[in-house]
Amino acid sequence: MASNQQVKLLGVKGSPFVARAEIALKLKGVQYEFIHESLSNKSDLLLKNNPVHKKVPVLLHNDKPVCESLVIVEYIDEAWTGSTILPSDPYHRAQARFWSKFVDDKVFPAVFKAATNPNEKEREQGGEELRESLKILENELKGKFFNGDSIGLVDIAALFIAFWLPIIQEAVGLDLYNSEKYPKLDKWGQEIMNHHVVKEVLPDRDPLLAFFKGRFRSNTPSK
Amino acid sequence: MASNQQVKLLGVKGSPFVARAEIALKLKGVQYEFIHESLSNKSDLLLKNNPVHKKVPVLLHNDKPVCESLVIVEYIDEAWTGSTILPSDPYHRAQARFWSKFVDDKVFPAVFKAATNPNEKEREQGGEELRESLKILENELKGKFFNGDSIGLVDIAALFIAFWLPIIQEAVGLDLYNSEKYPKLDKWGQEIMNHHVVKEVLPDRDPLLAFFKGRFRSNTPSK
Repeated sequence: MASNQQVKLLGVKGSPFVARAEIALKLKGVQYEFIHESLSNKSDLLLKNNPVHKKVPVLLHNDKPVCESLVIVEYIDEAWTGSTILPSDPYHRAQARFWSKFVDDKVFPAVFKAATNPNEKEREQGGEELRESLKILENELKGKFFNGDSIGLVDIAALFIAFWLPIIQEAVGLDLYNSEKYPKLDKWGQEIMNHHVVKEVLPDRDPLLAFFKGRFRSNTPSK
Repeated sequence: MASNQQVKLLGVKGSPFVARAEIALKLKGVQYEFIHESLSNKSDLLLKNNPVHKKVPVLLHNDKPVCESLVIVEYIDEAWTGSTILPSDPYHRAQARFWSKFVDDKVFPAVFKAATNPNEKEREQGGEELRESLKILENELKGKFFNGDSIGLVDIAALFIAFWLPIIQEAVGLDLYNSEKYPKLDKWGQEIMNHHVVKEVLPDRDPLLAFFKGRFRSNTPSK
Protein backbone atom coordinates (compact mmCIF):
# COMPACT_ATOMS: atom_id res chain seq x y z
CA MET A 1 0.00 0.00 0.00
CA ALA A 2 1.27 3.48 -0.85
CA SER A 3 3.25 5.36 1.76
CA ASN A 4 0.99 8.41 1.68
CA GLN A 5 -1.35 6.73 4.10
CA GLN A 6 -2.40 8.65 7.17
CA VAL A 7 -3.36 6.35 10.02
CA LYS A 8 -4.48 7.54 13.44
CA LEU A 9 -5.73 5.53 16.36
CA LEU A 10 -7.89 7.23 18.98
CA GLY A 11 -7.50 5.36 22.22
CA VAL A 12 -6.56 5.18 25.87
CA LYS A 13 -3.59 3.21 27.12
CA GLY A 14 -4.74 0.33 29.30
CA SER A 15 -7.84 -0.58 27.31
CA PRO A 16 -7.95 -4.21 26.10
CA PHE A 17 -10.05 -3.08 23.14
CA VAL A 18 -7.59 -0.40 22.04
CA ALA A 19 -4.75 -2.92 22.44
CA ARG A 20 -6.44 -5.16 19.85
CA ALA A 21 -6.24 -2.43 17.23
CA GLU A 22 -2.64 -1.55 18.12
CA ILE A 23 -1.51 -5.18 17.90
CA ALA A 24 -3.14 -5.56 14.49
CA LEU A 25 -1.48 -2.37 13.19
CA LYS A 26 1.93 -3.46 14.48
CA LEU A 27 1.55 -7.00 13.07
CA LYS A 28 1.00 -5.39 9.67
CA GLY A 29 3.86 -2.93 10.14
CA VAL A 30 1.54 0.05 9.72
CA GLN A 31 2.88 3.39 10.93
CA TYR A 32 0.25 5.21 12.96
CA GLU A 33 -0.24 8.11 15.30
CA PHE A 34 -1.74 7.25 18.70
CA ILE A 35 -4.08 10.02 19.81
CA HIS A 36 -4.71 9.87 23.56
CA GLU A 37 -8.32 10.35 24.53
CA SER A 38 -9.71 11.31 27.91
CA LEU A 39 -12.81 9.28 28.66
CA SER A 40 -14.03 11.91 31.10
CA ASN A 41 -13.64 14.64 28.51
CA LYS A 42 -14.06 13.10 25.08
CA SER A 43 -12.60 15.03 22.17
CA ASP A 44 -14.62 16.44 19.32
CA LEU A 45 -12.58 14.17 17.05
CA LEU A 46 -13.85 11.10 18.92
CA LEU A 47 -17.45 12.28 19.10
CA LYS A 48 -17.44 13.17 15.41
CA ASN A 49 -15.95 9.86 14.30
CA ASN A 50 -17.83 7.49 16.59
CA PRO A 51 -21.11 9.32 17.15
CA VAL A 52 -22.99 6.06 17.68
CA HIS A 53 -21.01 4.56 20.56
CA LYS A 54 -18.69 7.48 21.50
CA LYS A 55 -16.06 4.90 22.47
CA VAL A 56 -12.45 4.09 21.75
CA PRO A 57 -10.79 2.61 19.79
CA VAL A 58 -11.49 4.52 16.59
CA LEU A 59 -9.20 3.96 13.63
CA LEU A 60 -8.89 6.86 11.20
CA HIS A 61 -7.52 5.76 7.85
CA ASN A 62 -7.07 8.83 5.68
CA ASP A 63 -9.72 10.45 7.91
CA LYS A 64 -12.26 7.66 7.35
CA PRO A 65 -13.35 6.18 10.68
CA VAL A 66 -13.64 2.50 11.59
CA CYS A 67 -15.13 1.64 15.00
CA GLU A 68 -15.56 -1.48 17.18
CA SER A 69 -12.34 -3.30 18.01
CA LEU A 70 -12.97 -6.60 16.19
CA VAL A 71 -14.28 -4.75 13.14
CA ILE A 72 -11.11 -2.64 13.21
CA VAL A 73 -8.87 -5.73 13.41
CA GLU A 74 -10.62 -7.35 10.43
CA TYR A 75 -10.41 -4.06 8.53
CA ILE A 76 -6.68 -3.79 9.18
CA ASP A 77 -6.24 -7.38 8.01
CA GLU A 78 -8.06 -6.66 4.75
CA ALA A 79 -6.70 -3.17 4.07
CA TRP A 80 -2.99 -3.94 4.47
CA THR A 81 -0.80 -6.77 3.27
CA GLY A 82 1.72 -8.48 5.55
CA SER A 83 1.10 -11.02 8.31
CA THR A 84 -2.40 -12.40 7.99
CA ILE A 85 -4.56 -12.08 11.09
CA LEU A 86 -7.49 -14.14 9.85
CA PRO A 87 -6.91 -17.44 8.03
CA SER A 88 -7.50 -17.45 4.27
CA ASP A 89 -9.82 -20.47 4.23
CA PRO A 90 -13.51 -19.45 4.63
CA TYR A 91 -14.24 -22.19 7.16
CA HIS A 92 -11.32 -21.26 9.38
CA ARG A 93 -12.23 -17.59 9.02
CA ALA A 94 -15.73 -18.42 10.29
CA GLN A 95 -14.25 -20.29 13.26
CA ALA A 96 -12.03 -17.32 14.10
CA ARG A 97 -15.04 -15.00 14.00
CA PHE A 98 -17.07 -17.40 16.13
CA TRP A 99 -14.45 -17.60 18.89
CA SER A 100 -13.62 -13.91 18.96
CA LYS A 101 -17.36 -13.21 19.27
CA PHE A 102 -17.49 -15.80 22.05
CA VAL A 103 -14.87 -13.84 24.00
CA ASP A 104 -16.84 -10.62 23.63
CA ASP A 105 -20.26 -12.14 24.30
CA LYS A 106 -19.34 -14.51 27.13
CA VAL A 107 -16.00 -13.71 28.77
CA PHE A 108 -16.20 -9.93 29.15
CA PRO A 109 -19.77 -9.80 30.54
CA ALA A 110 -18.99 -12.64 32.99
CA VAL A 111 -15.86 -10.89 34.29
CA PHE A 112 -17.65 -7.61 34.84
CA LYS A 113 -20.64 -9.33 36.42
CA ALA A 114 -18.31 -11.24 38.76
CA ALA A 115 -16.24 -8.18 39.59
CA THR A 116 -18.77 -5.37 39.79
CA ASN A 117 -22.35 -6.55 40.26
CA PRO A 118 -23.72 -5.09 43.52
CA ASN A 119 -25.62 -8.32 44.22
CA GLU A 120 -23.49 -11.10 45.74
CA LYS A 121 -25.46 -13.91 44.09
CA GLU A 122 -25.05 -12.24 40.72
CA ARG A 123 -21.30 -11.92 41.32
CA GLU A 124 -21.10 -15.62 42.16
CA GLN A 125 -23.07 -16.48 39.05
CA GLY A 126 -20.74 -14.28 36.98
CA GLY A 127 -17.79 -16.24 38.39
CA GLU A 128 -19.49 -19.51 37.45
CA GLU A 129 -20.22 -18.30 33.92
CA LEU A 130 -16.61 -17.18 33.56
CA ARG A 131 -15.22 -20.55 34.69
CA GLU A 132 -17.49 -22.30 32.20
CA SER A 133 -16.35 -20.04 29.35
CA LEU A 134 -12.68 -20.46 30.25
CA LYS A 135 -13.09 -24.22 30.29
CA ILE A 136 -14.61 -24.11 26.81
CA LEU A 137 -11.67 -22.01 25.56
CA GLU A 138 -9.19 -24.33 27.33
CA ASN A 139 -10.66 -27.26 25.37
CA GLU A 140 -10.55 -25.28 22.13
CA LEU A 141 -6.80 -24.56 22.33
CA LYS A 142 -5.08 -27.11 20.13
CA GLY A 143 -1.73 -25.51 19.30
CA LYS A 144 0.57 -22.72 20.37
CA PHE A 145 -2.05 -20.16 19.40
CA PHE A 146 -5.77 -20.55 18.75
CA ASN A 147 -5.26 -20.85 15.02
CA GLY A 148 -1.98 -22.78 15.07
CA ASP A 149 1.55 -21.42 15.11
CA SER A 150 0.97 -17.74 14.55
CA ILE A 151 -1.02 -15.12 16.38
CA GLY A 152 -4.48 -14.45 14.95
CA LEU A 153 -7.87 -12.86 15.57
CA VAL A 154 -8.90 -15.11 18.49
CA ASP A 155 -5.57 -14.60 20.29
CA ILE A 156 -5.90 -10.85 19.89
CA ALA A 157 -9.48 -10.97 21.17
CA ALA A 158 -8.65 -13.27 24.09
CA LEU A 159 -5.49 -11.47 25.23
CA PHE A 160 -7.75 -9.91 27.87
CA ILE A 161 -7.77 -13.28 29.67
CA ALA A 162 -3.99 -13.52 29.82
CA PHE A 163 -3.20 -9.97 30.87
CA TRP A 164 -6.20 -8.03 32.15
CA LEU A 165 -8.14 -10.75 33.96
CA PRO A 166 -5.39 -11.58 36.52
CA ILE A 167 -5.06 -7.85 37.26
CA ILE A 168 -8.80 -7.45 37.72
CA GLN A 169 -9.01 -10.46 40.02
CA GLU A 170 -6.18 -9.03 42.11
CA ALA A 171 -7.93 -5.66 42.22
CA VAL A 172 -11.23 -7.11 43.43
CA GLY A 173 -9.71 -9.87 45.56
CA LEU A 174 -11.66 -12.70 43.95
CA ASP A 175 -10.55 -16.09 42.63
CA LEU A 176 -11.67 -15.67 39.03
CA TYR A 177 -8.78 -17.15 37.07
CA ASN A 178 -6.71 -19.88 38.63
CA SER A 179 -4.09 -20.62 36.02
CA GLU A 180 -3.51 -24.14 37.39
CA LYS A 181 -7.04 -25.05 36.39
CA TYR A 182 -6.43 -23.97 32.81
CA PRO A 183 -2.93 -25.23 31.94
CA LYS A 184 -3.32 -24.78 28.18
CA LEU A 185 -4.75 -21.27 28.53
CA ASP A 186 -1.95 -20.47 30.95
CA LYS A 187 0.75 -21.65 28.54
CA TRP A 188 -0.94 -19.79 25.70
CA GLY A 189 -1.05 -16.68 27.88
CA GLN A 190 2.72 -16.84 28.46
CA GLU A 191 3.32 -17.30 24.72
CA ILE A 192 1.17 -14.39 23.66
CA MET A 193 2.46 -12.02 26.32
CA ASN A 194 6.00 -12.82 25.15
CA HIS A 195 5.17 -12.08 21.52
CA HIS A 196 7.33 -9.12 20.51
CA VAL A 197 4.40 -7.10 19.16
CA VAL A 198 2.17 -7.79 22.16
CA LYS A 199 4.98 -6.83 24.54
CA GLU A 200 5.26 -3.44 22.85
CA VAL A 201 1.55 -2.81 23.30
CA LEU A 202 0.76 -4.09 26.79
CA PRO A 203 0.42 -1.29 29.34
CA ASP A 204 2.33 -1.19 32.64
CA ARG A 205 0.75 -3.49 35.20
CA ASP A 206 0.93 -1.36 38.35
CA PRO A 207 -0.95 1.74 37.23
CA LEU A 208 -3.60 -0.54 35.70
CA LEU A 209 -3.97 -2.42 38.98
CA ALA A 210 -4.40 0.87 40.82
CA PHE A 211 -6.97 1.98 38.24
CA PHE A 212 -9.03 -1.21 38.62
CA LYS A 213 -8.79 -1.06 42.42
CA GLY A 214 -10.26 2.40 42.31
CA ARG A 215 -12.93 1.45 39.82
CA PHE A 216 -14.07 -1.89 41.24
CA ARG A 217 -13.43 -1.94 44.97
CA SER A 218 -16.38 0.27 45.77
CA ASN A 219 -18.71 -2.35 44.23
CA THR A 220 -17.45 -5.41 46.01
CA PRO A 221 -17.10 -6.40 49.65
CA SER A 222 -13.64 -5.82 51.07
CA LYS A 223 -11.62 -8.95 51.75
CA MET B 1 -18.28 -24.79 -6.43
CA ALA B 2 -18.69 -28.49 -7.15
CA SER B 3 -22.18 -29.96 -7.05
CA ASN B 4 -21.25 -32.68 -4.56
CA GLN B 5 -21.77 -30.23 -1.73
CA GLN B 6 -23.97 -31.28 1.13
CA VAL B 7 -25.55 -28.32 2.87
CA LYS B 8 -27.93 -28.57 5.80
CA LEU B 9 -29.43 -25.83 7.89
CA LEU B 10 -30.63 -26.65 11.40
CA GLY B 11 -33.33 -24.18 12.32
CA VAL B 12 -36.83 -23.32 13.37
CA LYS B 13 -39.26 -21.49 11.11
CA GLY B 14 -40.08 -18.09 12.56
CA SER B 15 -36.64 -17.26 13.90
CA PRO B 16 -35.14 -14.00 12.58
CA PHE B 17 -31.67 -15.49 13.06
CA VAL B 18 -32.42 -18.63 11.04
CA ALA B 19 -33.99 -16.45 8.34
CA ARG B 20 -30.64 -14.64 7.93
CA ALA B 21 -28.91 -17.89 7.01
CA GLU B 22 -31.71 -18.97 4.67
CA ILE B 23 -31.71 -15.65 2.83
CA ALA B 24 -27.93 -15.82 2.35
CA LEU B 25 -28.14 -19.40 1.01
CA LYS B 26 -30.92 -18.47 -1.41
CA LEU B 27 -29.15 -15.33 -2.59
CA LYS B 28 -26.22 -17.55 -3.53
CA GLY B 29 -28.46 -20.18 -5.10
CA VAL B 30 -27.19 -22.87 -2.74
CA GLN B 31 -29.33 -26.01 -2.50
CA TYR B 32 -29.80 -27.00 1.13
CA GLU B 33 -31.83 -29.23 3.36
CA PHE B 34 -33.74 -27.46 6.16
CA ILE B 35 -33.74 -29.62 9.27
CA HIS B 36 -36.48 -28.60 11.68
CA GLU B 37 -35.39 -28.39 15.28
CA SER B 38 -37.57 -28.41 18.36
CA LEU B 39 -36.25 -25.91 20.88
CA SER B 40 -37.95 -27.76 23.73
CA ASN B 41 -36.34 -31.03 22.68
CA LYS B 42 -33.06 -30.24 20.94
CA SER B 43 -31.67 -32.92 18.65
CA ASP B 44 -28.37 -34.67 19.19
CA LEU B 45 -27.32 -33.23 15.84
CA LEU B 46 -27.82 -29.68 17.16
CA LEU B 47 -26.15 -30.35 20.52
CA LYS B 48 -23.19 -32.02 18.82
CA ASN B 49 -22.69 -29.24 16.28
CA ASN B 50 -23.28 -26.21 18.49
CA PRO B 51 -22.18 -27.49 21.92
CA VAL B 52 -21.21 -23.97 23.02
CA HIS B 53 -24.51 -22.13 22.52
CA LYS B 54 -26.90 -25.00 21.72
CA LYS B 55 -28.81 -22.62 19.46
CA VAL B 56 -30.08 -22.45 15.91
CA PRO B 57 -29.16 -21.64 13.21
CA VAL B 58 -26.37 -24.11 12.58
CA LEU B 59 -25.08 -24.50 9.04
CA LEU B 60 -23.59 -27.87 8.18
CA HIS B 61 -21.41 -27.71 5.08
CA ASN B 62 -20.24 -31.22 4.28
CA ASP B 63 -20.84 -31.98 7.97
CA LYS B 64 -18.65 -29.09 9.19
CA PRO B 65 -20.65 -26.78 11.46
CA VAL B 66 -20.80 -22.99 11.36
CA CYS B 67 -22.71 -21.23 14.15
CA GLU B 68 -23.92 -17.70 14.94
CA SER B 69 -26.14 -16.14 12.29
CA LEU B 70 -23.89 -13.26 11.16
CA VAL B 71 -20.86 -15.56 11.10
CA ILE B 72 -22.90 -17.97 8.96
CA VAL B 73 -23.90 -15.20 6.52
CA GLU B 74 -20.29 -14.08 6.10
CA TYR B 75 -19.22 -17.71 5.68
CA ILE B 76 -21.82 -18.29 2.95
CA ASP B 77 -20.65 -15.12 1.22
CA GLU B 78 -17.04 -16.31 1.22
CA ALA B 79 -17.63 -20.01 0.50
CA TRP B 80 -19.89 -19.62 -2.55
CA THR B 81 -19.74 -17.39 -5.59
CA GLY B 82 -22.80 -15.57 -6.90
CA SER B 83 -24.44 -12.42 -5.53
CA THR B 84 -22.12 -10.72 -3.09
CA ILE B 85 -23.56 -10.09 0.34
CA LEU B 86 -20.68 -8.03 1.71
CA PRO B 87 -19.08 -5.30 -0.44
CA SER B 88 -15.63 -6.04 -1.86
CA ASP B 89 -13.98 -2.85 -0.62
CA PRO B 90 -12.44 -3.30 2.87
CA TYR B 91 -13.80 0.00 4.16
CA HIS B 92 -17.35 -0.77 3.07
CA ARG B 93 -17.01 -4.29 4.47
CA ALA B 94 -16.06 -2.79 7.83
CA GLN B 95 -19.10 -0.50 7.72
CA ALA B 96 -21.37 -3.47 6.95
CA ARG B 97 -19.93 -5.37 9.91
CA PHE B 98 -20.30 -2.33 12.15
CA TRP B 99 -23.98 -1.84 11.35
CA SER B 100 -24.95 -5.51 11.51
CA LYS B 101 -23.27 -5.66 14.92
CA PHE B 102 -25.19 -2.52 15.89
CA VAL B 103 -28.47 -4.29 15.13
CA ASP B 104 -27.49 -7.26 17.29
CA ASP B 105 -26.00 -5.23 20.15
CA LYS B 106 -28.56 -2.42 20.30
CA VAL B 107 -31.83 -3.22 18.54
CA PHE B 108 -32.49 -6.78 19.74
CA PRO B 109 -31.74 -6.18 23.44
CA ALA B 110 -33.84 -2.99 23.42
CA VAL B 111 -36.83 -4.78 21.87
CA PHE B 112 -36.72 -7.62 24.37
CA LYS B 113 -36.20 -5.22 27.26
CA ALA B 114 -39.18 -3.14 26.11
CA ALA B 115 -41.36 -6.19 25.50
CA THR B 116 -40.49 -8.55 28.33
CA ASN B 117 -38.80 -6.87 31.27
CA PRO B 118 -40.94 -7.39 34.39
CA ASN B 119 -40.08 -3.89 35.61
CA GLU B 120 -42.17 -1.12 34.01
CA LYS B 121 -39.40 1.49 34.20
CA GLU B 122 -37.01 -0.93 32.49
CA ARG B 123 -39.58 -1.56 29.76
CA GLU B 124 -39.95 2.18 29.20
CA GLN B 125 -36.19 2.57 29.06
CA GLY B 126 -36.01 -0.29 26.55
CA GLY B 127 -38.55 1.54 24.38
CA GLU B 128 -36.47 4.71 24.60
CA GLU B 129 -33.27 2.85 23.66
CA LEU B 130 -35.05 1.26 20.74
CA ARG B 131 -36.35 4.58 19.41
CA GLU B 132 -32.85 6.02 19.65
CA SER B 133 -31.36 3.06 17.72
CA LEU B 134 -34.05 3.21 15.05
CA LYS B 135 -33.40 6.92 14.59
CA ILE B 136 -29.70 6.22 14.09
CA LEU B 137 -30.51 3.57 11.47
CA GLU B 138 -33.04 5.90 9.80
CA ASN B 139 -30.28 8.48 9.37
CA GLU B 140 -27.89 5.83 8.06
CA LEU B 141 -30.17 4.75 5.21
CA LYS B 142 -28.99 6.52 2.09
CA GLY B 143 -30.30 4.37 -0.76
CA LYS B 144 -32.78 1.64 -1.51
CA PHE B 145 -30.85 -0.75 0.74
CA PHE B 146 -28.23 -0.07 3.41
CA ASN B 147 -25.38 -0.65 1.01
CA GLY B 148 -26.96 0.82 -2.10
CA ASP B 149 -29.09 -0.92 -4.72
CA SER B 150 -28.75 -4.54 -3.71
CA ILE B 151 -29.51 -6.42 -0.54
CA GLY B 152 -26.52 -6.98 1.75
CA LEU B 153 -25.39 -7.95 5.23
CA VAL B 154 -26.99 -5.01 7.06
CA ASP B 155 -30.34 -5.51 5.34
CA ILE B 156 -30.29 -9.19 6.24
CA ALA B 157 -29.39 -8.34 9.85
CA ALA B 158 -31.99 -5.58 10.14
CA LEU B 159 -34.88 -7.46 8.50
CA PHE B 160 -36.04 -8.11 12.07
CA ILE B 161 -37.10 -4.45 12.26
CA ALA B 162 -39.26 -4.65 9.15
CA PHE B 163 -40.99 -7.96 9.80
CA TRP B 164 -40.65 -9.19 13.38
CA LEU B 165 -40.77 -5.92 15.31
CA PRO B 166 -44.29 -4.89 14.15
CA ILE B 167 -45.54 -8.38 15.09
CA ILE B 168 -43.93 -8.20 18.53
CA GLN B 169 -45.38 -4.76 19.21
CA GLU B 170 -48.82 -6.03 18.24
CA ALA B 171 -48.35 -9.06 20.50
CA VAL B 172 -47.41 -6.99 23.54
CA GLY B 173 -49.67 -4.03 22.75
CA LEU B 174 -46.93 -1.41 22.91
CA ASP B 175 -46.03 1.45 20.58
CA LEU B 176 -42.47 0.39 19.76
CA TYR B 177 -42.24 1.03 16.04
CA ASN B 178 -44.33 3.76 14.52
CA SER B 179 -43.49 3.59 10.83
CA GLU B 180 -44.52 7.22 10.27
CA LYS B 181 -41.66 8.33 12.50
CA TYR B 182 -39.14 6.42 10.39
CA PRO B 183 -40.18 7.02 6.76
CA LYS B 184 -36.89 5.81 5.27
CA LEU B 185 -36.82 2.66 7.40
CA ASP B 186 -40.46 2.07 6.50
CA LYS B 187 -39.78 2.37 2.75
CA TRP B 188 -36.72 0.13 3.11
CA GLY B 189 -38.85 -2.39 5.01
CA GLN B 190 -41.36 -2.56 2.16
CA GLU B 191 -38.53 -3.01 -0.36
CA ILE B 192 -36.83 -5.79 1.52
CA MET B 193 -40.03 -7.67 2.33
CA ASN B 194 -40.88 -7.58 -1.38
CA HIS B 195 -37.51 -8.98 -2.40
CA HIS B 196 -38.21 -12.35 -4.05
CA VAL B 197 -35.72 -14.23 -1.84
CA VAL B 198 -36.93 -12.63 1.38
CA LYS B 199 -40.55 -13.38 0.47
CA GLU B 200 -39.70 -17.07 0.13
CA VAL B 201 -38.13 -17.14 3.58
CA LEU B 202 -40.45 -15.02 5.74
CA PRO B 203 -42.73 -17.13 7.94
CA ASP B 204 -46.51 -16.73 8.05
CA ARG B 205 -47.52 -13.76 10.16
CA ASP B 206 -50.50 -15.14 12.10
CA PRO B 207 -48.90 -18.17 13.77
CA LEU B 208 -45.92 -15.97 14.69
CA LEU B 209 -48.22 -13.38 16.26
CA ALA B 210 -49.91 -16.13 18.28
CA PHE B 211 -46.50 -17.44 19.35
CA PHE B 212 -45.30 -14.02 20.55
CA LYS B 213 -48.62 -13.36 22.32
CA GLY B 214 -48.15 -16.59 24.25
CA ARG B 215 -44.52 -15.84 25.00
CA PHE B 216 -44.67 -12.19 25.92
CA ARG B 217 -48.11 -11.41 27.30
CA SER B 218 -47.42 -13.01 30.64
CA ASN B 219 -44.56 -10.56 31.23
CA THR B 220 -46.35 -7.35 30.41
CA PRO B 221 -49.42 -5.63 31.77
CA SER B 222 -52.57 -6.31 29.76
CA LYS B 223 -53.84 -3.41 27.73
